[in-house]
Amino acid sequence: MTHPLRQHIEEIIPLTDEEFAYILSFFQPVTKRKHQYLLQEGETANKEYWVIKGCVKSYFIEDSGKEHILQFAMENWWITDYESFVKQLPSKTAIDCIEDSQLLYITYENRDKLTATMHKMERFWAKKSKMGRIALQKRIVSLLQNSAKERYDQLLEQYPTLFQRVPKKMIAAYLGVSRETLSRLNS
Amino acid sequence: MTHPLRQHIEEIIPLTDEEFAYILSFFQPVTKRKHQYLLQEGETANKEYWVIKGCVKSYFIEDSGKEHILQFAMENWWITDYESFVKQLPSKTAIDCIEDSQLLYITYENRDKLTATMHKMERFWAKKSKMGRIALQKRIVSLLQNSAKERYDQLLEQYPTLFQRVPKKMIAAYLGVSRETLSRLNS
Repeated sequence: MTHPLRQHIEEIIPLTDEEFAYILSFFQPVTKRKHQYLLQEGETANKEYWVIKGCVKSYFIEDSGKEHILQFAMENWWITDYESFVKQLPSKTAIDCIEDSQLLYITYENRDKLTATMHKMERFWAKKSKMGRIALQKRIVSLLQNSAKERYDQLLEQYPTLFQRVPKKMIAAYLGVSRETLSRLNS
Repeated sequence: MTHPLRQHIEEIIPLTDEEFAYILSFFQPVTKRKHQYLLQEGETANKEYWVIKGCVKSYFIEDSGKEHILQFAMENWWITDYESFVKQLPSKTAIDCIEDSQLLYITYENRDKLTATMHKMERFWAKKSKMGRIALQKRIVSLLQNSAKERYDQLLEQYPTLFQRVPKKMIAAYLGVSRETLSRLNS
């Protein structure tokens, strides 16, 4: 059976067996239970995670105690605090598991070494980064332009499975609306 | 005198004379006057621009006629409609010059060829894309969390020169606040 990470990379770039073995040697597996964390606020993010199975969220808590969710990640998604990871500075967000999760991670040093020595992986992550940028841009457009109802409908259309796997209060924390507003939208 | 594009790339990756000559051969210069456009809504973005001198904006107009500014670009900044450029689909935004502007552009095909044949440029743009992603993430945090006043102060701190070069109504269209709110913040 083809390794799921190989399938994922080969959606963008074909690899030889030797190339994939080289890539995989830079990754480590990790298993976490629901509610365990992958990154704490204030820690420097030294790992980028790829979700084999499960669901995680990155978030921050306002001084008032209000939670804002920045990103969810399910199967085949990459997640870290990118500002902390890229600049190697303390993280302003935390990452927790919403479900029991199996992941692979690559450290900052290994990612740099892998991309420096292998053009294909630089190209793979460059493509992923472009797609991530487009998704963030869409979210900004949505926050500037759309009502809570439109943002809800858009998220439901983009990621229908998220609504089955994630509690409603987290959907509200992602959309930047209150749970009461979400209940109205949801009825 | 070192070419400004070479200076810009060498902030991230050192180049030989031959390498820079190769890179530059993929770019074309273009000069535009204030109010001229670089991209119209509905056109497929086939060019990524780099600003040598001047100031441009990318924006979209709501059905109600309200303008939202997605990005400004001044000297040394890159701009296009990334969703349209990366996916080669019709653009939802337009790009106009706010000042007389000198730019370089690279076409989609040339950018793909340059990054495919030169790992250093793949790495350069991967780094730029990561930084762009971080900036967008900050803007999302700001839209979710901060008041108009905080967003105004943050923008002023990040890009003080923007406030001298760009009309106040455009700052308002970027922040997602009304001109009246901006006038209050500005006083």
